[in-house]
This record gives sequence, C-alpha cells and structure tokens, in this order.
Amino acid sequence: MSDIKAWLEDKLLQLNVTDTMDQPQGFTRLSYTPEEKEAHEAFQTIATSLGLEVSTDEAGNQWALWTVDASAPTVAVGSHLDTVHSGGGYDGVAGVLSGLAAVNVLKTEGFTPKKNIAIICFASEESARYGVSTIGSKALTGWLDKHDLADVKDAEGMSIQASVEAFGLDWEIIENADLSPDRLESFLELHIEQGTQIETSGSDIGVVRGVACPTRLTIKASGMANHTGTTPMDNRRDAFAAIAPVIPFVEEEARSMNQHLELPLVATVSTVQLKPNAMNVIPGEVELGIDIRSVDDEAKRKLAETIKAFCRKLEEKRDVTITVDTLVDNDSVFLSEDVREKLMTACQHLGYQPLEMDSGAGHDVMNMATRFPSGLLFIPCKEGISHHPKEYATLEDIEKGTQTIAHYLKIETGDDSESTHRSDWSARLS
Amino acid sequence: MSDIKAWLEDKLLQLNVTDTMDQPQGFTRLSYTPEEKEAHEAFQTIATSLGLEVSTDEAGNQWALWTVDASAPTVAVGSHLDTVHSGGGYDGVAGVLSGLAAVNVLKTEGFTPKKNIAIICFASEESARYGVSTIGSKALTGWLDKHDLADVKDAEGMSIQASVEAFGLDWEIIENADLSPDRLESFLELHIEQGTQIETSGSDIGVVRGVACPTRLTIKASGMANHTGTTPMDNRRDAFAAIAPVIPFVEEEARSMNQHLELPLVATVSTVQLKPNAMNVIPGEVELGIDIRSVDDEAKRKLAETIKAFCRKLEEKRDVTITVDTLVDNDSVFLSEDVREKLMTACQHLGYQPLEMDSGAGHDVMNMATRFPSGLLFIPCKEGISHHPKEYATLEDIEKGTQTIAHYLKIETGDDSESTHRSDWSARLS
Repeated sequence: MSDIKAWLEDKLLQLNVTDTMDQPQGFTRLSYTPEEKEAHEAFQTIATSLGLEVSTDEAGNQWALWTVDASAPTVAVGSHLDTVHSGGGYDGVAGVLSGLAAVNVLKTEGFTPKKNIAIICFASEESARYGVSTIGSKALTGWLDKHDLADVKDAEGMSIQASVEAFGLDWEIIENADLSPDRLESFLELHIEQGTQIETSGSDIGVVRGVACPTRLTIKASGMANHTGTTPMDNRRDAFAAIAPVIPFVEEEARSMNQHLELPLVATVSTVQLKPNAMNVIPGEVELGIDIRSVDDEAKRKLAETIKAFCRKLEEKRDVTITVDTLVDNDSVFLSEDVREKLMTACQHLGYQPLEMDSGAGHDVMNMATRFPSGLLFIPCKEGISHHPKEYATLEDIEKGTQTIAHYLKIETGDDSESTHRSDWSARLS
Repeated sequence: MSDIKAWLEDKLLQLNVTDTMDQPQGFTRLSYTPEEKEAHEAFQTIATSLGLEVSTDEAGNQWALWTVDASAPTVAVGSHLDTVHSGGGYDGVAGVLSGLAAVNVLKTEGFTPKKNIAIICFASEESARYGVSTIGSKALTGWLDKHDLADVKDAEGMSIQASVEAFGLDWEIIENADLSPDRLESFLELHIEQGTQIETSGSDIGVVRGVACPTRLTIKASGMANHTGTTPMDNRRDAFAAIAPVIPFVEEEARSMNQHLELPLVATVSTVQLKPNAMNVIPGEVELGIDIRSVDDEAKRKLAETIKAFCRKLEEKRDVTITVDTLVDNDSVFLSEDVREKLMTACQHLGYQPLEMDSGAGHDVMNMATRFPSGLLFIPCKEGISHHPKEYATLEDIEKGTQTIAHYLKIETGDDSESTHRSDWSARLS
C-alpha cells in the first residue's frame, strides 16, 4: 500500500471514530450531537498534526488554516462529517479527508503556496435530525435565519437551539458565522457521487458543472373514511385508490421525458401519509410527497405541470378532492467555470479521465457557490449506494481525489497575482 | 314524543355520559379506559332502575339479569359501549340501549317471561386501542388467550394487562369469564348497520343471516433505498412505484367480480408503511394491508388468489421482490336460523319491513355465535357513516329495534318448554 493510501486509511478510521469501516448498522452522527462533536475533535487532531491552526466558528464549522501570508487571499476546500441515521462513512468524510490529505501531500512535497489554504469541516449538513440541511454552510453564507429555526425539534423533542447550545455554541450569535465575500477567493468540495455515472462512463473522477435543486410537490387527496366491511364498492370515496395511479405515472413520465432531454431528470414519489391507516377503515386522506430534480429547470417545472394536470384528471373521475402544492422550487446552481477549468487541467496533468457532469444531490457547495467561486469534484462510490451502511469508496478513488485537489491547489495558490481578498484570520483564530 | 322515544333519548345521553349528542369531536371511550368504565356505570344505574340485578364478570363484561326462575334457561341480548377514537355515540350503544329499553317495554306492559333475561354490555369491542377487537365477548366464549395478549401495548406504551388491572379486574383470572354452552339458550345483538342497504332497499330493519369475516393480506415489496437526486431513472429499484398498480387493481377487481356475484364482496387497500418515507430517498420497502370481506368465502379467496397472481406479474417486470402473506382468513359466521325466524315473525307482527341481509363488519355476536344460537339485528344509520362524529341513528329506528327485541323476547321467553340450560346465576351475582 502506498504511503498516501495508508495515511488515508488511518485517517478515514480516525474521522469515523472507529477502528473498522465494516459496520453492519452503519454510522450515526446526527447534526449537533456528541457523535458529530467527536468527529470534529478527530478533525482537529489530524489538522493540528499537519501543522494547521484550528478554530471553530459561531455555527460550529471547523476551520484548519495553513496561513502563509496574512495579506494574501485564502483558498478553501471542505465538506462535512455528520451523517444520516445508519449512514455510511464516506458521505462528507471523503471530502474532509481528501482536503486534509491534499495538504499532507503538498507539505510532504515541500510545496509552499502563495495563498493561504483553509480546510473547512461544515457542521450539520444532513437534514436527518431536523429536516433542515447544510446548517453550517448556510450560516457561513448568510442563508440561516435563526428565528425560523429556533423551535424546530428532533424526534425526541429537542430543539435546534438546545442542541446547538449543548454542542458548546451560543445560539444568539450563530448568524455571526456569516463570512463576507472577500474572505475566500474560491471554494472546492469533494464528495462521493451517490450515483453510478462515473463508473458507467469508464471515467476516473467527476467534475461538476451544475447542482440540481429539487422541486418538491405535496399531493393531498381527500375522500371519506368509512368501514371497509360495510361500505359497498360503488359507494366509496377511497382517497388511496383514487390517487394511487399518480405513483407509477411520475416514474413513467420522468422516463419518457428523458428520451428527449439532454440533461437527465429524475422524479420520485418518496413519501406517503395515510389517514387513518387502519386495516378496517377506507383511507379518507392521503398525502404524497414528490421530489423532482434536474439541472434543466424548465424540464423540472414541465413535469410538475404534467403531474398537476394528471391529478386534475383523476379528480374529475371521482368524488375525491385532490390538491397539489409546491413545497420547494429552486433554480439549479451553476458552479464556477474558472474552478472547473483548473480541475480539468489537474486531471489532465495526472492522467485521470474526468467526466463533466451534473449533481442530482445538494451539498454544502450549493450555499458556498452563492457567495464564492466554487467547484465540486465527485469520486465514484460502489453501485451508487449512499445513506446506507453499504456505502463504500475505494482508497484508490479517494487518493485520486486527493491528488486532484493537491494539484488544483498548486494551480490555485501558485499564482500570487494581486487580489482584493482579505486573509486576516486573526479574529477567527482568537 | 312518545314515552318510549323520550326514555330512549334520555338513556342514550346517559350511556354516552353527555348531555348532547352534538359532538363535533365525537366520542372517545377506548377499551378498558376510565371513559369506558363511566359508560358501564351509567349502564349499571339504568339497569338497576329497571329492577335488574347487575354484576361484572372477570373480563369486565356487565350483566343485567331479570331472573324469574333459577331453574329456567336464560336468553341474552347485548352489545358494547366502548368506541374508537372520535367515534359516534350509536355504534354499540344502540344495542345496549335497545336491550334495556325492551326490558322496560316488557315490564311496562306487565309481561312476565318464563325464562330469565340477561342484558349484556360487552367490554372492549373496538380494536382502536390495542389492535384486538371484541375482547369481552372473546373471553366469554373461550377465544381469549391471555398469554398472547399480556404484552400488547397501546400508543402510549400501556399494556392490555396494565389497563385491565387499572379497570379494576384481575388479569390472571380474565379467562374465567368463559361461559359454558349451557348457560345461555340464545343471544341477540342489535347494531347500527354501518352501511346503507336497509335505506336503499326501503326497508325498516335488517335481519342478518351471515357475518363476513375478513381475509387480510400483507403485501411486502423490497427494492433498494437510494438517493432521489443521484439515482438515474433506469437504475432504480423503487418499491413504491413497483407495487402501486395493485392499489387501484384491488378496487377494480372487486367491482368487476361483483357484477357476477350474488353476495357482495368488498376489498380495500387500507394501510401502507413506506421505508424510509423520506423526501430525498427512493422507497426501499413498502408494506400494504388489504382487507377483503364477503359472506361468500369462495369469492373472498378467489380475489386473494387474483391479487397474488397480479403481484407475481408485477414482480416479473422489475428487480423488486414481492411477497404476499395471508394474515387472517376466517370463514363467514352463519347465524341461527331459529333466532332469525323469530325476528322475522316479530317484524311481521309489528308491521315492519325486514331486509334479510349479511353483515360486512364483525361484532360481538361473531364470538357468541360460536357457542350459543345467535342473531343480529341492524337498524339504519345515516348515510352509512360510522366510526365518525357524524354517525347518527334516529330515535324512530332505535324504537323499532326496541319493539322488535321486545316482541322477540316475548316469543323466546314465552315458551317454558323443558330445556337443558342452566340459569343459576348466583355464582356470577355473588
């Protein structure tokens, strides 16, 4: 095993606070829990051993700084260490690990950057605990509204505010993590693909152009609950039987649209709530949740309209009321062309076959891109499995990611041309 | 208002522990709760005022006895007073009320029965709290297995054993409520129809032949949970999209079978559990619950087979595993021809138009019929609505039920022909 692979393997275990990646129950490090904190402490230990200066911001994001010149700009790389319930040990971890590993590579090679380098470990990226994702990077880029969130509770009834304070932070100043646009010259995240496009195309690594944000619909069907045994078939207002055809329809329609679209579209009926959901009662109310994603925003909206029209047809056939609400409808985020070109150059230099692709999933980079020129690298993960104990990325692929980041940092920090970016981190490090 | 209607109205409120039947939130008297106990106490008060001797058996069933001759057989009438969550004030209550009212009619008329009469108020008929129905009548007829049930818990985590004991009973001897076949000569229940057949046919009252017991299926579809945003449409194993066509299929197939069946059949996909049921995850596992009912047992089983065959076809099309399990598959219960003939005679005498019909819902009589010659009367309820705050039966229809029971009791107890039935209730009344 190469020195780099051995280092990666060792630190992968350390960041996952474990001595084996073979975890049948997966990893559970929810937002702002003692488990996330333990992973942050492992990050601090590794970063310190690399000679980086470590600090925590007001939202609990971890910063590891390689400061070469307080007057030079700063280039950042990062991802997160929290997980879903019974998730994998690579989603987020791979990005933090390869950022630290890239610093290790540069330091081992004796490279001296002309700009400062920051490795960021964002707090609380997953929405598993509070239904709110990317809290740390939202705070950092001014998207966090603490008044909206204070009372949001987890399944055990603990509020975000309470868990943030138990994490050792001060809820009242969480928004102070907000970083002005001149504080970072650029940002790069590496993440596992959570899909199989890289593998299928025979490429080594993915260089992302756009991040597809979801359009989400809620469909509510209201009929009439009644006894399953005594209500004749021709005298029913069964909300579930009425709305059910939309479930295969969404899948079929997305498949059919993909035959004519350049950019892929995905759509899923992913949630259902039935009332009363009792064996002897005809379903009176049903709520379905639909998640639609594509970098092609027009296609996404077209499918949403087609689903609405289909629901109107279902409603005409029956004595059941169907309403469709749009919960979320965000435009796609397009990443920095400049960062992407540097990543392509790095791949070319290293002899890696890159795949220019889009991301179907949201990541911290989605927020970072609204404020700083940003890029996103994908490494393959086995069979595209993610948010699951079977999530897996090879050390070879994490090493390729590390080398790509290291070479990108050489390009990005080798140029000391004048910049308007401030790098005085003394306040943050105080 | 007639004297009988005024009496019925007064006691209807008393049994519902209220001063108005206009309850937008309905009535909630779950199994073995203080609310059920309050209704039982109202039953005791009314029965005592009618000169009946009241006792409670080991399962909490209330007995009100009109004993005329300890050596004569006993004829019983009854139903229950518990309800579902936010249920109506007639399901169960109508049967207990009209039983008591029939005694009042007979006593007012100065009728002296030649057999003893028992009005039974069964404990805990509804399955809303524990998922187990007709606990009181099961105990009475030897169908209760306390070892199976002791640990079954309600939504708040309270076990049946704990709630039975809080109700003032001794769990260890609950099975002692078991009544030998010679203790009752016959049993009659009156219940609201929970359907609209009586109304549709222009009849006054329903005389039930058979009670349809459900056949219940559980369909499990197992695919693969994965990220909704990153998993291409042609690389999915979506369990929900795979199994969804069965939902409208069950309804269509039941409708189509009814065109050729003499006895009606009903079938409902009434429950669904999705895993993980999260907006950004493709459903990996789905479980559907199907309830099929008909007095035509062969038709019920034929539909179950058709559903299984349909699932096998769905499974062939996809990389999703589908299994169908039969949870319950009981034969219909046919009621006593002798009791039915006496009920028809009573209707003829009173000038009521009876409808001979089947019951799609289960009732306490289902258990009683396994041990004692039993009958079931239905009175109409508005629009067939039941288990709902809008449940409603008119005082006119409850009065017709009362008169039918009173006349039936005259026939049933007017004959003092020799019988092998024991009526020594001293042990129970001790």
